[in-house]
Amino acid sequence: MGNELLIGLVSVSDRAAAGVYEDRGIPALREWFGAALASPWRMESRLIADEQPLIERTLVELADAVGCHLVVTTGGTGPAPRDVTPEATLAVAQRVLPGFGEQMRQVSLKYVPTAILSRQIGAVRGSTLILNLPGQPKAIKETLDGIFAAVPYCLDLIGGPYVETNEEVVKAFRPRSAQRPAAG
Amino acid sequence: MGNELLIGLVSVSDRAAAGVYEDRGIPALREWFGAALASPWRMESRLIADEQPLIERTLVELADAVGCHLVVTTGGTGPAPRDVTPEATLAVAQRVLPGFGEQMRQVSLKYVPTAILSRQIGAVRGSTLILNLPGQPKAIKETLDGIFAAVPYCLDLIGGPYVETNEEVVKAFRPRSAQRPAAG
Amino acid sequence: MGNELLIGLVSVSDRAAAGVYEDRGIPALREWFGAALASPWRMESRLIADEQPLIERTLVELADAVGCHLVVTTGGTGPAPRDVTPEATLAVAQRVLPGFGEQMRQVSLKYVPTAILSRQIGAVRGSTLILNLPGQPKAIKETLDGIFAAVPYCLDLIGGPYVETNEEVVKAFRPRSAQRPAAG
Repeated sequence: MGNELLIGLVSVSDRAAAGVYEDRGIPALREWFGAALASPWRMESRLIADEQPLIERTLVELADAVGCHLVVTTGGTGPAPRDVTPEATLAVAQRVLPGFGEQMRQVSLKYVPTAILSRQIGAVRGSTLILNLPGQPKAIKETLDGIFAAVPYCLDLIGGPYVETNEEVVKAFRPRSAQRPAAG
Repeated sequence: MGNELLIGLVSVSDRAAAGVYEDRGIPALREWFGAALASPWRMESRLIADEQPLIERTLVELADAVGCHLVVTTGGTGPAPRDVTPEATLAVAQRVLPGFGEQMRQVSLKYVPTAILSRQIGAVRGSTLILNLPGQPKAIKETLDGIFAAVPYCLDLIGGPYVETNEEVVKAFRPRSAQRPAAG
Repeated sequence: MGNELLIGLVSVSDRAAAGVYEDRGIPALREWFGAALASPWRMESRLIADEQPLIERTLVELADAVGCHLVVTTGGTGPAPRDVTPEATLAVAQRVLPGFGEQMRQVSLKYVPTAILSRQIGAVRGSTLILNLPGQPKAIKETLDGIFAAVPYCLDLIGGPYVETNEEVVKAFRPRSAQRPAAG
């Protein structure tokens, strides 16, 4: 389908990748997108360790080879030495959208004061938007609830498909000139 | 006059520069400054295409050759591939003032969730403050209303003239030690 | 003591360093930490001029040689040409925590619109957290009141001691899994 959204989900966690515990990031992302998206979509998922070269290769593969329009990472954005997801994202980004990082922290600050420790960023590589989300399922949902309204129009601007959302979860915002009549 | 503020206005738009439609950025900026400034000022304006080298040259000319104290751009700050105003600004900047970009996005977020997509920055080159504003006249006004209170003191600190404002539009803030008695 | 917090306090001011007026930054910081910290701590303080190489050397000495877990600077974060504390901090930082700068500006914006002119950052070097605070005693207190809740958990994550606070000043926030039973 011409407007199918292809999403790459990348869970970054040493312990989940080693099987020490079960990954909860990808299920939380899949559940959120399943509830939020009203237009066609499918996903590719990866579960990897907190190794910067591996994260970079995974982001590049999902953006350039798989052709994902949106790649969402979960985990690895804190201040600990093993947290390198933002570094990997920055290394493969062509431009940073600083408003995403700022707003994700502002949203999380409503819940926990330690939200300011997160170094998550939003960035564009080619026609792929990459977003770093927190690691906890609850924080994933809070963050996406808080920022996803701007994502469909961002995808329009970088050459992606026209994404529609379930308004009871999140209402996509577009300037009037960018809106299409509702399907059906 | 010793305290005349010289403002450079730069409208960045492929279509307006090509005459496809009329530029609305410079008129919106001129109207805002006309209403807001109480001390003497004049402006130099430029209407140019979204070409990074051209934007850079224009900013350098206005700052270094024309001697503008404040250069304000409008347009070209979004995530689309042709949007390169922040890149050009960063390339000619000597230091970035991150609070301007953050606060401009926060102000615009009160109106539209897609404000987080803007990559606008504030920066200093020599004794010139450069601010990237959005492209839409309505957003230009909202943004200047929201951040200009800090601009006169910023100009004081980088060696510019003492700027006074019409308080019904915006009230300039200075620490007490930096305030001069009102003229007249 | 194994959990003693070692804090480096750096007051950056040409005039205070030259004895033109008395430094008020270090006394304000000492007073705040004295009231806020409930676990053991001691401090090393430095009063230096606004010279970038000197600031860099001082930060490196306090982090690497003295072994401070937390280094707090005061002064030198504005847009004036002599303000170079953020540049010095960035030069010795291994990673920046952008949420600190954003939130310090947001906190100060509640008091003065010129808060957006501050370029203060938070950064990590090895297992040392470095924070740029404003220069005025009143703003130092407002800023620390507004962001310190996230500092103890940040220190946990980068390998520092377990810091406890007086909750009537500021309540440290940690996720449940990172909390230790109260001493005593």
